[in-house]
Amino acid sequence: MRYIGKEEIENIAIGAALLGTGGGGDPYIGKLMALQAIEEYGPIKLLSIDEVPDDALVVPTAMMGAPTVMIEKVPSGEEAIESFQTLQNYLGKEIFATMPIEAGGVNSLLPLALAARLGLPVIDADGMGRAFPELQMVTFHLDGVKATPMVLSDEKGNNLLFNTIDSVWAERIARGATIEMGGSVMLSIYPMTGKNIKQSAIHHSLTFEEQIGKAIREAKKNNKNPIDEVIALTNGYSLFKGKVTDINRKTQQGFSKGTATIEGLEENKGEECYLHFQNEHLLAETKDNVLCVTPDLITVLDKETGMPITTEGLKYGARCVVIGIPADKKWRTQKGIEVAGPRYFGYDLDFSPVEQLLRKENN
Amino acid sequence: MRYIGKEEIENIAIGAALLGTGGGGDPYIGKLMALQAIEEYGPIKLLSIDEVPDDALVVPTAMMGAPTVMIEKVPSGEEAIESFQTLQNYLGKEIFATMPIEAGGVNSLLPLALAARLGLPVIDADGMGRAFPELQMVTFHLDGVKATPMVLSDEKGNNLLFNTIDSVWAERIARGATIEMGGSVMLSIYPMTGKNIKQSAIHHSLTFEEQIGKAIREAKKNNKNPIDEVIALTNGYSLFKGKVTDINRKTQQGFSKGTATIEGLEENKGEECYLHFQNEHLLAETKDNVLCVTPDLITVLDKETGMPITTEGLKYGARCVVIGIPADKKWRTQKGIEVAGPRYFGYDLDFSPVEQLLRKENN
Repeated sequence: MRYIGKEEIENIAIGAALLGTGGGGDPYIGKLMALQAIEEYGPIKLLSIDEVPDDALVVPTAMMGAPTVMIEKVPSGEEAIESFQTLQNYLGKEIFATMPIEAGGVNSLLPLALAARLGLPVIDADGMGRAFPELQMVTFHLDGVKATPMVLSDEKGNNLLFNTIDSVWAERIARGATIEMGGSVMLSIYPMTGKNIKQSAIHHSLTFEEQIGKAIREAKKNNKNPIDEVIALTNGYSLFKGKVTDINRKTQQGFSKGTATIEGLEENKGEECYLHFQNEHLLAETKDNVLCVTPDLITVLDKETGMPITTEGLKYGARCVVIGIPADKKWRTQKGIEVAGPRYFGYDLDFSPVEQLLRKENN
Repeated sequence: MRYIGKEEIENIAIGAALLGTGGGGDPYIGKLMALQAIEEYGPIKLLSIDEVPDDALVVPTAMMGAPTVMIEKVPSGEEAIESFQTLQNYLGKEIFATMPIEAGGVNSLLPLALAARLGLPVIDADGMGRAFPELQMVTFHLDGVKATPMVLSDEKGNNLLFNTIDSVWAERIARGATIEMGGSVMLSIYPMTGKNIKQSAIHHSLTFEEQIGKAIREAKKNNKNPIDEVIALTNGYSLFKGKVTDINRKTQQGFSKGTATIEGLEENKGEECYLHFQNEHLLAETKDNVLCVTPDLITVLDKETGMPITTEGLKYGARCVVIGIPADKKWRTQKGIEVAGPRYFGYDLDFSPVEQLLRKENN
C-alpha cells in the first residue's frame, strides 16, 4: 500500500498516454480531474493486487466514447459517482475498491479521481495493459468474466443499468446508447471479486505508468535519451523515425478513426510509415512491411522530448519516433488475438509479434 | 371486472388496428400471442380504472421499434416477462396489473398476452387513445409522470434498466439501444400508481377497440355499412375515397417512414390524397387542403369490408376510405400539441381539429 499524490499523477499521466497507444482519451483531462480531487480530498490509497481480499467486490470505472467528444464535454465527476453508486445499490454489497479498465489515456486517471472523491482505494492493475477501443477487449473477458451488470451515466443525469448475455452485446448496445447520450459517458463495469482480479488482471499497471512517466521527465536531467529509456523500460523497439505529413481522421460510430502518414527521416529517409487507428493505433506499416500490429502496442513519441503523442495530438510536421512494445502474454494467446487481433479490426493479416516482424524486416 | 377470451381478442385486434392509425405494429402478431396465451392460461381479467386501488403499482408494457422489423422477429413472450420482472425486482414492490401504453396495433394486445402468462389483470385504459411513435407521446407524460425507471429486453436475453432525467431522454436513448438490439425490444415503462392512472390515462380503451372491431365484423350480417358504423362509433369523418397508387416507404432511425398516394374515386375523382406516416399516419392532405393532422387520428379502411389497413399493409391498387377521428381532449391542449402535434414531426403547419378543417374545405 502506498499513496498517490500530485507528483505521481504527473508521471502516471505520461505513462498512461504512452501505453494508451495514441488513444484512451487525452490523459490531460483525467490528470486535471485527479489533481483536483487530490487537492480537495488528499492523496489516494493504492493497493497492490495481493492486498485485496479474495471476496472483496471490485468495480473498474471508465469513460466510454470518442475522445474527440470528451475534450469538449469534460466530465464533472458526478456522473462517475452516480454510475458507481447505482451499481453498488444494485449489487447490494459495498464496493471495496475501484481500478482502471485500461492502462492508457484518460481511463488510467479517472478511477483515481473517483477514488479520491469517495475515499476508496485504487488497485494497481488494469484489464488491458494498454488501451483498446471496445469493452470486451479486456483480460477479464478472456477469462470469462462478464462486463455486466454495468451502469452507464451521462453528465445530464441519465443512467442505464445493463444486463447483457455477454460482453460483446454490452459493447454493442452501450456504443449505440453512448452516441445518443452525447458521445461520451461514464461506466462502472466488470464487477469482480478480488479472486477474479488476481487471476485475470494485469498487475502493477499504475506503477508501470508512473515509472515510464518518471523516466521520460527525468531523462534530460540525467543526460539520457528519453526514447532509449522508454525502450529499455518497456522491452520495446524503435520502428520508424520521421515527421507527420498527413492525417485523415473522422468520428464514426462513436470512434475516432483514421490514418496518419509519417515521412521518414534519418535511417528511414525515403520511406513512409502509415499508422492506422481506431481511437488507438492498431497497425503500423510501410509500403512493404508490417512494423507492428495489435494487440502489440504502437505508440508515437515526440522525437526530442520523448513525450507520447495521442492520435488527437498528431499534427502536421510533428517529428516523432514510432515505438513497438510487445503486448502482455494474455493478448498473444489464440483467444486474445481473436478478441483484439488485426482481423477483428478488419485488417487482412495474421498477428505476428513485433520482435518477429523486425527480425523479418532486417533479413 | 370481466374476462377477455378469444372472441374479444378478435374484436380488439381490429379496433386496435383502426385506432393504431396505420401504425403501432401489425396487430396480427399481438393477436396470435394473446390467443396463444389464452389457450394456455385461460381468459384474461380486465379491470376498469375505478377497480384499481389508488396505491396499486401498475406497469404498462409495450414493444418498441419498427413494426417492419417485428414481422420478421416475432417476440417469444419471454422478453416481456423478463423486462416486467426486472422492473418489479428493481422497484421492490409487487406489480398489481399491466395495461397498454397505446390503443393501437400490436401494443394493445401484447399486454394481454403478458397478463395471461403471469396471471395478472389488465386495466381497460391506455396512454394515447391511439398509437404514436415515441415514448413521451403519452397522456402520462402530459401530466408529468416519468417513463423511467423502465426496462428494455430483447429476445436474446439482454436487458437494460433506464433511469433518465425525463421521458424525452428515455425515448432518445432507448431508440439508439433498440437499433443495436436488432430493431425491436419489449418495454416495461411508466410505472404508476392507481391514482396516476385515474388522473392521466385514457379510459375504456380496450372496450372501445372491442366495440369498433365488433361493429366492423358484424356490419355485413346486420346489412349495415361497416364504414358508417365506424364513423358513428368514433365520432369520425370520411375524408377521402380512392385507391392506392404509390407508396414510398423506408426504415429509418428505427421508424417506418414514408408517404402513400391515393387517387380519388367517386366524389373525390380527379383529386389525390397524400398520407404521410412515421409508423403512424400523421398528415392527410390533398394538393390544396389539409384533411386531418396529428394528434387527430387518420385511419385507412378497406372500402368494401371496413377493415383497417396498416401502413405496412398499404398495397398498390387497394381501394380505401380515409377516416379522420378527433383525438382525446388531452391531446388538443397546448402541451398535447407541443408533444405530438404537426410541428413536432416536422410539418410546417399548426394543428387544426379535423372538424374545423372539414368545415373550411366545404366553404
